[in-house]
Amino acid sequence: MKTRHTLPGDIERTSMSIIAAELAARGIVLPPENEAIVKRVIHTTADFDYAQTLRFTPEAAERGQAALRRGTPIVTDTNMAKAGISKPSLEKLGCTLHCFMAEPEVARMARERGITRAAVSMEYASQEYPSAILAVGNAPTALLRIAELIEAGWRPALVVGVPVGFVNVVESKEILFAACEACGVPAIAAMGRKGGSSVAAAICNALLYAAAETLDPAARGWQ
Amino acid sequence: MKTRHTLPGDIERTSMSIIAAELAARGIVLPPENEAIVKRVIHTTADFDYAQTLRFTPEAAERGQAALRRGTPIVTDTNMAKAGISKPSLEKLGCTLHCFMAEPEVARMARERGITRAAVSMEYASQEYPSAILAVGNAPTALLRIAELIEAGWRPALVVGVPVGFVNVVESKEILFAACEACGVPAIAAMGRKGGSSVAAAICNALLYAAAETLDPAARGWQ
Repeated sequence: MKTRHTLPGDIERTSMSIIAAELAARGIVLPPENEAIVKRVIHTTADFDYAQTLRFTPEAAERGQAALRRGTPIVTDTNMAKAGISKPSLEKLGCTLHCFMAEPEVARMARERGITRAAVSMEYASQEYPSAILAVGNAPTALLRIAELIEAGWRPALVVGVPVGFVNVVESKEILFAACEACGVPAIAAMGRKGGSSVAAAICNALLYAAAETLDPAARGWQ
Repeated sequence: MKTRHTLPGDIERTSMSIIAAELAARGIVLPPENEAIVKRVIHTTADFDYAQTLRFTPEAAERGQAALRRGTPIVTDTNMAKAGISKPSLEKLGCTLHCFMAEPEVARMARERGITRAAVSMEYASQEYPSAILAVGNAPTALLRIAELIEAGWRPALVVGVPVGFVNVVESKEILFAACEACGVPAIAAMGRKGGSSVAAAICNALLYAAAETLDPAARGWQ
């Protein structure tokens, strides 16, 4: 093994073949419409648990891609997820990318109201980008606030709900998913404890690559 | 469960108690010097596999903390890992944080020599910050180049080697760890396929928090 490089595309194809073979060996058959997302999350984590824990509302992947083809902005709950989302793909699709966690206004409102910055940052998104795709990889309180706002009438294009952790995380994803199902908002969530900013970014990237491919098959982005 | 916030410190303490209890239930006893790092990685991933896969050269954690207390810079192989590392803790310790992946010079040299940007970015680090802490969460070729440079005499303060993936990843971590052991360079690696930018950031943060705590017990950073 040397540092002379195998092309990133070759490594990715080999990785995806290994993932497909190991899913087959485990007897796991993924619904074709969700396959690219689940495989990309496994590619990002080397964790096959996600084949069991990722949940999708009907047509969530398709509706997410369609939103990106319309140039829908993405709002994340961490700068880490923001850093992990493919800039060339966003540019190709004309989508913008935002995280409001570091806005002084968000910090001030959170302090004044005694709620988390993550919750306030999602209210901020509902005002600034009401039809955004929301990608939440960290804060259960962001998901809970999104669920409340959806019940009050907010209709984001898609909610990616994949916080990781041991406190309030499992419940927040269940509450979010139920609210999205009840209100017809597309959602993709990693049930259970696992998730994270890398997983949120991976799901957005799988959607971005698929959306960009249908614009131009040569435009596939490699992160 | 409400969006009104439990203090982040309380959530973190509860999470760490749950992790400690589940480690005990699995019969896992961590060496005290590595405990904070292993627990923080589990906290970041909700994945107890890391209790088995994280490997440390002797005194790696202690030497990493000492380096940070001296203001040693950290160099990452992705902007995502860079985004995940605690800025208040870096500031408190007077450490700087760098990622050279997006430097036009790095891209140009990688093209000219037919090697990866990640490998070139580590050469760049060896010139610009020869005594840095290196945090590699993505690129096996970065680890392989680091191993070669260490064998040629480079002595970084610590190598955190935790790429994730299915191709060349397992081997790159074994080669890196062996080179570090042979040359007396402190190393922390996640053996096997798992790892990633979040894991690289979590290990750096555990070291930063511990280093900052010994400067001032009230300075513990919460990300």
